[in-house]
Amino acid sequence: MAVVTNLDPHRRKSSTTPLDDLTALVADDLLAVNTIIVDRMQSPVALIPQLAGYIVAAGGKRLRPVLTLAAARLCGYRGEHHRLLAAVVEFIHTATLLHDDVVDESDLRRGLASANAVFGNKASVLVGDFLFSRAFQMMVEVKSLEVLGILANASAVIAEGEVLQLQTTNDTQTSEQAYLEVIKGKTAELFAAACRVGAVVADRPAAEETALNDYGLNLGIAFQLVDDVLDYSARQATLGKTVGDDFREGKITLPVVLAFRRGNEEERAFWRRTMEELDQRDGDLERAQELMTRHGALADTVERARHYGAIARDSLGLFPDMPVKRALLDVVDFVIDREF
Amino acid sequence: MAVVTNLDPHRRKSSTTPLDDLTALVADDLLAVNTIIVDRMQSPVALIPQLAGYIVAAGGKRLRPVLTLAAARLCGYRGEHHRLLAAVVEFIHTATLLHDDVVDESDLRRGLASANAVFGNKASVLVGDFLFSRAFQMMVEVKSLEVLGILANASAVIAEGEVLQLQTTNDTQTSEQAYLEVIKGKTAELFAAACRVGAVVADRPAAEETALNDYGLNLGIAFQLVDDVLDYSARQATLGKTVGDDFREGKITLPVVLAFRRGNEEERAFWRRTMEELDQRDGDLERAQELMTRHGALADTVERARHYGAIARDSLGLFPDMPVKRALLDVVDFVIDREF
Repeated sequence: MAVVTNLDPHRRKSSTTPLDDLTALVADDLLAVNTIIVDRMQSPVALIPQLAGYIVAAGGKRLRPVLTLAAARLCGYRGEHHRLLAAVVEFIHTATLLHDDVVDESDLRRGLASANAVFGNKASVLVGDFLFSRAFQMMVEVKSLEVLGILANASAVIAEGEVLQLQTTNDTQTSEQAYLEVIKGKTAELFAAACRVGAVVADRPAAEETALNDYGLNLGIAFQLVDDVLDYSARQATLGKTVGDDFREGKITLPVVLAFRRGNEEERAFWRRTMEELDQRDGDLERAQELMTRHGALADTVERARHYGAIARDSLGLFPDMPVKRALLDVVDFVIDREF
Repeated sequence: MAVVTNLDPHRRKSSTTPLDDLTALVADDLLAVNTIIVDRMQSPVALIPQLAGYIVAAGGKRLRPVLTLAAARLCGYRGEHHRLLAAVVEFIHTATLLHDDVVDESDLRRGLASANAVFGNKASVLVGDFLFSRAFQMMVEVKSLEVLGILANASAVIAEGEVLQLQTTNDTQTSEQAYLEVIKGKTAELFAAACRVGAVVADRPAAEETALNDYGLNLGIAFQLVDDVLDYSARQATLGKTVGDDFREGKITLPVVLAFRRGNEEERAFWRRTMEELDQRDGDLERAQELMTRHGALADTVERARHYGAIARDSLGLFPDMPVKRALLDVVDFVIDREF
């Protein structure tokens, strides 16, 4: 969608992304993390590694564990606990994905059949529970009550965010503020915790812990905002993601909140019919996209993302210049300027 | 069913049960635990306390938290952490109930509409996740890595047990040993952990920890075996439980395992049709009960429960005679001789 792509005139031409660059900086660690992940999903109950392996293998770029590894690196950490914690963060993330797909009744995740579509809802709920419990077992090995507190708290906030989202689904009256609370919970809190524990294992001062927490939190908000834009504008082949999923589910995201508030009565009736009553017809998705474009809802959601991205970047101001810091800064822009 | 009730010629006539007696011994603590439970299920997201409050209010006799309180008392513990841990145990139990009812597609729990029937499957999955996370937050406050390890491990084993049960559902070939692994995981492990943490907070020697662990484990196995008998023999009014739930779901429990193995080919065909193919007709439940009676499957399941009950009783041999010990011993018999 031109209105969105035009927001980024400096699109890089190189074939490696800043996320690739960050990942390359922690490549050894990440290899170790992948081994830990495979090792720790084992169980005498065969269905557990089968299902967990399926979703972990399908599992994207390991953004969250890479953040933990990079944060520990930024803090000069020399031990090995950050690897275990990176795997913990991925397990928590995977458990929430499994439960999300059950809750959303999704058939696809990143272009592949979702775990619940392949293995059934029951197994997805229970294997999610297993991964979550296993994550806490692994955390105990790190022997840090602070780390345990941070990740237990993050998990509770994630669940709160998901329940809040359930309450706002199909409610076109949802305010931007309420939506922000949802995505802080369901997405940004785990980004924050993933970064923060990198400082905690390195035993760094509170100011650095907070800095990394705030970097993760704001990066997470920006990430989710852009994800919500992509649901209306992505080129499917690029993302392995079906455009219009949120629309079909009546999920209220910021593009909808803005288009609804900026629309006239006839347009609001359209949003109520499609998102609240889920009475959707041929051409409705295209109409939704057209209304969003007309009101600048997608472009302004990306602008909002830039605001949080700027906070994320400034959060790292305390840290000295070094390659991993530069990569973390570049990742902020990358997350916002992902392929539309 | 006469064959079962006759197994207990010494049915007590008093109106208080041994569980009532045990509960009375820790009444002050339990009152505090109930306050903690209500307090800690609070959240700014209103649906969470609504749903959690619904299932906790419906929630039976608080057997597991009473075990934690009694174990701490038996170990002479004088602090207050056992109350927090008793609430933690109830939260973990409640979270698994919420997910179980989603997995089993249950409409009733203890005679009331199940939480998923009232609030929907989505909310039940997510509020279960919240309670589970909240339990870990509360554990961190106790500042004992040993306690955290025990309960994280128990949670993982519970999830494994549930997945194993999913794999054995509808499989009439399930062996007694495989079934035992299922109930060790899904039920007995939390009983064991609930008792064990009572010794851990009291900082007692490893032998006492193990003794309480083994008491809980074997009590839990006996409890589940009898529960499975009750599903074919309970007087519904007494239990607030629908007879035949397991049968209708094709859930393979020990009474079925025994009746199948002891039956002839025609009978095995009946079990395959009803439990594997779930092709059930009028009179099938009665036929199942009749076959179980003919082969002594219910009576022998209760006998198996007595075996584990005896191990549970002997586990407490190390502890000096005191009222709470006597009450814990009596609870074993009570669990086995519950109203049929």
